[in-house]
Amino acid sequence: MFNKILVANRGEIAIRVMRAARELGVKTVAVYSDADKDAPHVAYADEAYPIGPAPATLSYLHIPNIINAAVHTGAEAIHPGYGFLSENDHFARICETWGLVFIGPPAEAIEKMGIKAEARRMMQEAGVPVVPGTEGTVSDMEEAQRVAEAIGYPILVKASFGGGGRGIRIVENSSELAEAIERASREAKSAFGNGEVYLEKYLDNPRHIEIQVIADKHGNIVTLGERESSLQRRRQKVLEEAPSAGMTETLRRQMSQAAAQAARAVNYSSAGTLEFLLDKSGQFYFMEMNTRVQVEHPCTEMVTGVDIVKEQIRVAAGLPLSITQEQVEMRGWSIECRINAEDPAQQFRPSPGTVTVWEEPGGPWVRVDAAARAGYVVQPFYDSLLAKLVVWGRDRAEAIARMRRALDEFHVEGVATTIPLHRQLMEDEAFQAGDIHINFLAERIKGA
Amino acid sequence: MFNKILVANRGEIAIRVMRAARELGVKTVAVYSDADKDAPHVAYADEAYPIGPAPATLSYLHIPNIINAAVHTGAEAIHPGYGFLSENDHFARICETWGLVFIGPPAEAIEKMGIKAEARRMMQEAGVPVVPGTEGTVSDMEEAQRVAEAIGYPILVKASFGGGGRGIRIVENSSELAEAIERASREAKSAFGNGEVYLEKYLDNPRHIEIQVIADKHGNIVTLGERESSLQRRRQKVLEEAPSAGMTETLRRQMSQAAAQAARAVNYSSAGTLEFLLDKSGQFYFMEMNTRVQVEHPCTEMVTGVDIVKEQIRVAAGLPLSITQEQVEMRGWSIECRINAEDPAQQFRPSPGTVTVWEEPGGPWVRVDAAARAGYVVQPFYDSLLAKLVVWGRDRAEAIARMRRALDEFHVEGVATTIPLHRQLMEDEAFQAGDIHINFLAERIKGA
Repeated sequence: MFNKILVANRGEIAIRVMRAARELGVKTVAVYSDADKDAPHVAYADEAYPIGPAPATLSYLHIPNIINAAVHTGAEAIHPGYGFLSENDHFARICETWGLVFIGPPAEAIEKMGIKAEARRMMQEAGVPVVPGTEGTVSDMEEAQRVAEAIGYPILVKASFGGGGRGIRIVENSSELAEAIERASREAKSAFGNGEVYLEKYLDNPRHIEIQVIADKHGNIVTLGERESSLQRRRQKVLEEAPSAGMTETLRRQMSQAAAQAARAVNYSSAGTLEFLLDKSGQFYFMEMNTRVQVEHPCTEMVTGVDIVKEQIRVAAGLPLSITQEQVEMRGWSIECRINAEDPAQQFRPSPGTVTVWEEPGGPWVRVDAAARAGYVVQPFYDSLLAKLVVWGRDRAEAIARMRRALDEFHVEGVATTIPLHRQLMEDEAFQAGDIHINFLAERIKGA
Repeated sequence: MFNKILVANRGEIAIRVMRAARELGVKTVAVYSDADKDAPHVAYADEAYPIGPAPATLSYLHIPNIINAAVHTGAEAIHPGYGFLSENDHFARICETWGLVFIGPPAEAIEKMGIKAEARRMMQEAGVPVVPGTEGTVSDMEEAQRVAEAIGYPILVKASFGGGGRGIRIVENSSELAEAIERASREAKSAFGNGEVYLEKYLDNPRHIEIQVIADKHGNIVTLGERESSLQRRRQKVLEEAPSAGMTETLRRQMSQAAAQAARAVNYSSAGTLEFLLDKSGQFYFMEMNTRVQVEHPCTEMVTGVDIVKEQIRVAAGLPLSITQEQVEMRGWSIECRINAEDPAQQFRPSPGTVTVWEEPGGPWVRVDAAARAGYVVQPFYDSLLAKLVVWGRDRAEAIARMRRALDEFHVEGVATTIPLHRQLMEDEAFQAGDIHINFLAERIKGA
């Protein structure tokens, strides 16, 4: 096991990783931007190292400064958290060059899964169903028309290097196709520096289901069941749960097998997530693989009892997984609400400022992963996640009742938060019935 | 289900009960002494009612004031928590008279289990093993000598109405017996107003093992496995865990069967705990039954997933248990540390005063049941429990590592706490090996 690791992140995930390290007896190094010098993750670490000014490009995304911090503090490995450098294969390779262990998958796996059209092609080869669409990117308008007819309208035009909902167009019929492709390509070129687009079948209000995978460097791959992340606002997840109310045992087995195949196809190790769309007929389609720990990993932890971040660290140190597939057992239900510094009453406008009151819920089966407290200053530079409120219940109804109770106990003043949105969701009858899909929030919540 | 219940207690257990009620959609009434008007349990409740001056005899133990509060607020039932009126059969009967449901076992069960010699006799009749000793109290010195010889020395002389370690003598051989009986009887008479004593086999460093029982009013009795509460200071439990490192599957089955028999013998309903001593040969002996929810119930909740307090409320409302014996499954390991306002460096002297800093641990598998916060005033009138820190891990080693991490995160200033004691325990090799017994703390911890 490592003696010391560096956590190249901030906020709740930095503390989450340090908690895992501490339980493993591993020392931790925090890095921080000038704006974060008083942030909770800095206080939590055994030592901390400054890496530059507030804008992430000059600090949390600045590879030389981070490598420098690791070298100077004698850290043996780097955990990237999520976001920032977590899916940057270039960074993973640089770590290797410097003799630092990257606590994540092999650089090749990150690279292959990062190119969406490539990932899609690979998944097809591995026998994993993908949403019907073009093979690779669109190069010829006539071919695009032909493929679109074969798939059937409506279809989606999507940017190869896209993300966060940008570079996506819905096309209702063939007369709109050419213009949509041009626009999406232009938007993608300006946003991501690459204008390549591809076509995909548009699914009617599917669910977003994802399978958690964890693999070691000895060829062992274990799947930890599904999460449902259908509740999204502009493609940003808002609430997640495990398991999914839309699953059957058969479907879970099929999707888990597909996920394990996908992981095997790229020689995966560490934690990763296969994201699928599940349509109303029970057909599932691969969307993408997140080659990192996800924000919503606690839901899976709560139902399986497996500490996903500890497994990441263990695996990176060359140890085998501490569990076999046969030992994995899902128990009960978990829900996670993302508590963001955003104002649901004002179209979810970010709400930076100073937190004046911060009282977390507690008691039975309530978990709070947070990096805020009274006096904490919410910076405008970073994402707005203040805390993840996670509950567990014997079934979904108990989890909802417990979440309602926990939300009532959560008092935050000084900044607006998404707590009122989550309270509204807990009272929503369709949500209570588990009748959700990826357009649910947009349809039901004003401003979402 | 009830519309509204009154919680006749204070501190963390009052909040624990209110959390369960809130998740069931039941309104709550707090009661409070003058000293507790700003206490957290008062703020947590839907409404609160004053019941008198600080000394418990004038408020939390003052039955007319509590009944009055329930009647005035329209509460339909009373949850007594632990301590105070929780094992007072007289109070249970008065509730009934006033048309209030007592959220606990039948008054008769409380009464029978409250008289130790009587409970012992009943358990023998029910086929539950008890520590070998006299049948009832010692009335004749010759008979005492004869029984002591049959049991074999060393033996214990114990007061029938004793408690808290008083009125107990260890006798090494027959020449000491007569004097020991006289002294114990004299001490018991002055301390408890009754000099009756009985004899019991002395066990060499046994473990304290208890079985959690939950029963409804429809004849269903479910056992939820064991807890180990061997770590005690002057017969006050300090740290508990579930399961016990000293158990085998066979022993667990035998003790659970004995516990279910005992519960059936007194027509039990609600939550209750059968306490046993387990000697090194694997023989177990009934000690007593606690006819209430116990401080350490969260350990069982964490490993079984069953919300014991919710079951109590459900059962009191006439509903059947929400689980069957077949559905009960123990997973992983849970440890609870009692965080008391006591100074381990000063012979555990109580440490009343104002809490100036109160930062609770959080993150994965950490549960805090607390009723303190910054600004909270620890009163000299009540017990010193500030919080229960509970963790869960896949095995005992992970639970210990997690507890160590959680203790590191727990910052309290203004009053001394037992946090340093628990940190010391987590580092103790014999504790880590699970090699504990009821004299462990007295032998290893200075001042304990």
